[in-house]
Amino acid sequence: LLHVAIVCAGLNSSREVVTLVKSMLFYRKNPLHLHLVTDAVARSILETLFRTWMVPALGVSFYDADQPKPQISWIPNKHYSGLYGLMKLVLPGILPPGLAQVIVLDTDVTFASDIAELWALFAYFSGVILLWLDRLRRAGWEQMWQLTARRELLTHPATSLADQDIFNAVIKEHPGLVQPLPCVWNVQLSDHTLAELCYLEAADLKVIHWNSPKKLRVKNKHAEFFRNLYLTFLGYDGNLLRRELFGCPSQPPTGAEQLQQSLAQLDEEDACFEFRQQQLTVHRVHITFLPHKPPPPRPHDVTLVAQLSMDRLQMLEALCRHWPGPMSLALYLTDAEAQQFLHFVEASPVLSARQDVAYHVVYREGPLYPVNQLRNVALAQALTPYVFLSDIDFLPAYSLYDYLRASIEQLGLGSLRKAALVVPAFETLRYRLSFPRSKAELLALLDAGALSTFRYHEWPRGHAATDYASWREAQAPYRVQWAADYEPYVVVPRDCPRYDPRFVGFGWNKVAHIMELDAQEYELLVLPEAFTIHLPHTPSLDISRFRSSPAYRACLQALKEEFHQDLSRRYGAAALKYLTALQRPRSPV
Amino acid sequence: LLHVAIVCAGLNSSREVVTLVKSMLFYRKNPLHLHLVTDAVARSILETLFRTWMVPALGVSFYDADQPKPQISWIPNKHYSGLYGLMKLVLPGILPPGLAQVIVLDTDVTFASDIAELWALFAYFSGVILLWLDRLRRAGWEQMWQLTARRELLTHPATSLADQDIFNAVIKEHPGLVQPLPCVWNVQLSDHTLAELCYLEAADLKVIHWNSPKKLRVKNKHAEFFRNLYLTFLGYDGNLLRRELFGCPSQPPTGAEQLQQSLAQLDEEDACFEFRQQQLTVHRVHITFLPHKPPPPRPHDVTLVAQLSMDRLQMLEALCRHWPGPMSLALYLTDAEAQQFLHFVEASPVLSARQDVAYHVVYREGPLYPVNQLRNVALAQALTPYVFLSDIDFLPAYSLYDYLRASIEQLGLGSLRKAALVVPAFETLRYRLSFPRSKAELLALLDAGALSTFRYHEWPRGHAATDYASWREAQAPYRVQWAADYEPYVVVPRDCPRYDPRFVGFGWNKVAHIMELDAQEYELLVLPEAFTIHLPHTPSLDISRFRSSPAYRACLQALKEEFHQDLSRRYGAAALKYLTALQRPRSPV
Repeated sequence: LLHVAIVCAGLNSSREVVTLVKSMLFYRKNPLHLHLVTDAVARSILETLFRTWMVPALGVSFYDADQPKPQISWIPNKHYSGLYGLMKLVLPGILPPGLAQVIVLDTDVTFASDIAELWALFAYFSGVILLWLDRLRRAGWEQMWQLTARRELLTHPATSLADQDIFNAVIKEHPGLVQPLPCVWNVQLSDHTLAELCYLEAADLKVIHWNSPKKLRVKNKHAEFFRNLYLTFLGYDGNLLRRELFGCPSQPPTGAEQLQQSLAQLDEEDACFEFRQQQLTVHRVHITFLPHKPPPPRPHDVTLVAQLSMDRLQMLEALCRHWPGPMSLALYLTDAEAQQFLHFVEASPVLSARQDVAYHVVYREGPLYPVNQLRNVALAQALTPYVFLSDIDFLPAYSLYDYLRASIEQLGLGSLRKAALVVPAFETLRYRLSFPRSKAELLALLDAGALSTFRYHEWPRGHAATDYASWREAQAPYRVQWAADYEPYVVVPRDCPRYDPRFVGFGWNKVAHIMELDAQEYELLVLPEAFTIHLPHTPSLDISRFRSSPAYRACLQALKEEFHQDLSRRYGAAALKYLTALQRPRSPV
Repeated sequence: LLHVAIVCAGLNSSREVVTLVKSMLFYRKNPLHLHLVTDAVARSILETLFRTWMVPALGVSFYDADQPKPQISWIPNKHYSGLYGLMKLVLPGILPPGLAQVIVLDTDVTFASDIAELWALFAYFSGVILLWLDRLRRAGWEQMWQLTARRELLTHPATSLADQDIFNAVIKEHPGLVQPLPCVWNVQLSDHTLAELCYLEAADLKVIHWNSPKKLRVKNKHAEFFRNLYLTFLGYDGNLLRRELFGCPSQPPTGAEQLQQSLAQLDEEDACFEFRQQQLTVHRVHITFLPHKPPPPRPHDVTLVAQLSMDRLQMLEALCRHWPGPMSLALYLTDAEAQQFLHFVEASPVLSARQDVAYHVVYREGPLYPVNQLRNVALAQALTPYVFLSDIDFLPAYSLYDYLRASIEQLGLGSLRKAALVVPAFETLRYRLSFPRSKAELLALLDAGALSTFRYHEWPRGHAATDYASWREAQAPYRVQWAADYEPYVVVPRDCPRYDPRFVGFGWNKVAHIMELDAQEYELLVLPEAFTIHLPHTPSLDISRFRSSPAYRACLQALKEEFHQDLSRRYGAAALKYLTALQRPRSPV
């Protein structure tokens, strides 16, 4: 079992560290334990990531990086990594006393070989450090570095010290403490290091250290070689690292054993095998993938919640223009697509200006789109008291964000009423719609045939209960009753029921959620000035598949029935009406 | 320099071998030379692939697998790889006399370590074989195996022999010839091998051999480990392997040096740097990625030529229904997307039933869509005398394929007339268009407003010269004149001018081609019964970028001007009219 310690604080570091971890896992052949010294932001991201990644023979412990701050905050420091850069000095004190040896890594390191070779060296220092913790403790490391640092500050009072400066000063005084590491284990790419000298002589590089501020754009004779190694792991499908170590049986990660059993119990001959497998899939989740500032706490604030994959990225800019409030979006991507997405946001002035949109990456696995699992990830990360449960191909009225907050306040939602506010849905089949600025403009477009109510032609049951005729005239919110197959877009408190993750692919995923709201006695209140409009787009592959496959429909029917059984179990006689509705014959979906 | 020999015949093997090559290149640290024994199909695919891959320190030689056939065709053989499976017996005769040692690999092998370790062993036999060629030649290998094989056939006349049977028989007689290979170098996954015994004891696997007919679905305690390794290289971005060997300077691959120089001469501060870089990019090309049967030679046959990326896969089924003839399609994909595409085709009964659609994968690299390079790849692979140069978001009239062939014959194209047949283009903004079955139905839809002529509202200049008013009444083909910005969809002989690869991203890519047809004095003949209809789709990212960026437009303008200069250089005074047209002021694109 090899131990690795990494100091990792903030959003960007927690994204960077993933590539390091992938490269380490790719080459490793031993069980590893990661000791992560993190702030609260990085901890919440990385806890979710490792829990859902479920890599065998990988342990992870977290340590609060804010707690040892007083021990180092007295040191003047201008290094770009700030106070966290000094954290390595106090690692012997942070890490458990029983831990004797640890490899300390910066987040901007890429492995090109098995970390066990590094462990075998068990030597010493910088970028990549091996710390012989018990020896350091015995040598009185804590007093030693503090004494040295204070003395340095006396003679150079204006100096700002990075951890490396202090390490160097201590080493100068106590050369016996150091065992130099062969340079191949820390090929530094910053300008003032002697990397080139190192790798001209070496036959093989083991670890590359991206410690130039230019990062990937560094100019260097072998830059391409290094870059390609880095890009290899940047785009590498992390799911492939969920493998047992070869010839080294290990404790399965939390939840993995139960999952394996459930998967093993599935019948491969079952026509719905793919559905059942997809439902059981635990997707790797990287929450808050990009810079994000949580919205200030406001009692009636609403977060727009939606999910998408690569083929709907184009919607994001328009959505940002229509919804000036916070958003929580789940993106279903491969590791390589996540990088494309990052570049897409960086290249867009509209998107990069927004700090209140949180993007949560759910990594792809399996053939069916896990629509409700995605919605639940986005919903779980919403930070305002209310959420607007939307879909990515809808653009809300420009005024909707303000109007919803005002309505929530006026209607006294929350403490007084348990309600779901219905936002009536429309659609256009025209690409170049001049988006209505008011209800009056919308009604004019409706009358002119440029708009229709959503799915009016193919699936009117989905929204008929919204009662568009009443809406046209309504001046105040009005109550509507649940009806079979009703699937309006609603605003609900953040603690509303989750979506049922069994619905994967296309069909019935929102219907089940609305049914559950009704079972929990949410009032359905239609807002008279609210609207949202579906824009045309190329049909997704999942929909095409659904439309053409009788087997797909049969499986969806089976899922529905199982959902109803569960509903009856949970809500008893009150759920009878849903079953009755299901059994009534109807036109095909 | 290490030598590797692989026998590779047919389409599927030439796809399989790519994953082997990737895994080998990923771990290797030495220059390699591949000796590929191929049939004509595999040779044309792999020659294109390696030429465009441009991997440094990788040599490739081809040997005709059909030539040594007589030496082995007398051997009764029922192995699934057929006669090519026996080819290893005659390798010492096929490979150059000066070549002393070679590692022989099956195509279904994945490396998990550096091939130099295998070379260092220089031992002997099976799935993975090291052949000490000069020793074999000296030992009289050719007579030896033939004698043994003939003797075996005498005693077991009904036996069908695979190469392995013959190798085994020879070894039995001449045990001194053999040096057994440690089992980690050939972890076989077929049912009757003792792989498990091997890897239970080994600490490390070096080469995995997918020799079970179940391939990836093989059940095995460590199947997941093996599968993940295989999938790693299946989806691996092959462009990342275009790296210089570390600490081992080598001769750059053909064309690479010149390319490096051209790239080095680009000015990074140039506002159009991205365009110029993209134009120079040599994309890796895998022609005929999926099973394909070339169309029988017919004098008036027409291939539909188009290009697409992942977001247009949904068009393929509809296109197959509308165009029953041969197609040559270039797909712009990552390595991982190429695998998704393969599964997409396999899952579609419509697509997998078609053997006359050739798919050519061009691997993604760079930020701009290389539209004209893609068109040229598809065009170069068309095998019929005529091509219909279309775009993927158009569906042709159901009758178009038959009608075009009849028109080509009637008009006496080819020897008699140098003409481009214009197929008038229309568009619908409606998703659920009932596609017109005849010109009369089309005109009715046009009058009803369900259809319009293509880009009538945004960019009428693109198709105005088709003269839709005349088309409405026309009973016979009529001639039209070139006009500025004209970009009709045309049918031309296969040897027509190529598209100008400088146009990357969006804009002006077809206009330049039509201009070049006109400069070469192609008659433009509009066909009275032909039509094709553009279906609505989400705008591509490239178009969004174009629309929002003044810098993008400015670069396009610069490209246009450079194109005109080249045109003047090539066609002299005749090209003056294009320049005049360009300089006339006009409404913005």
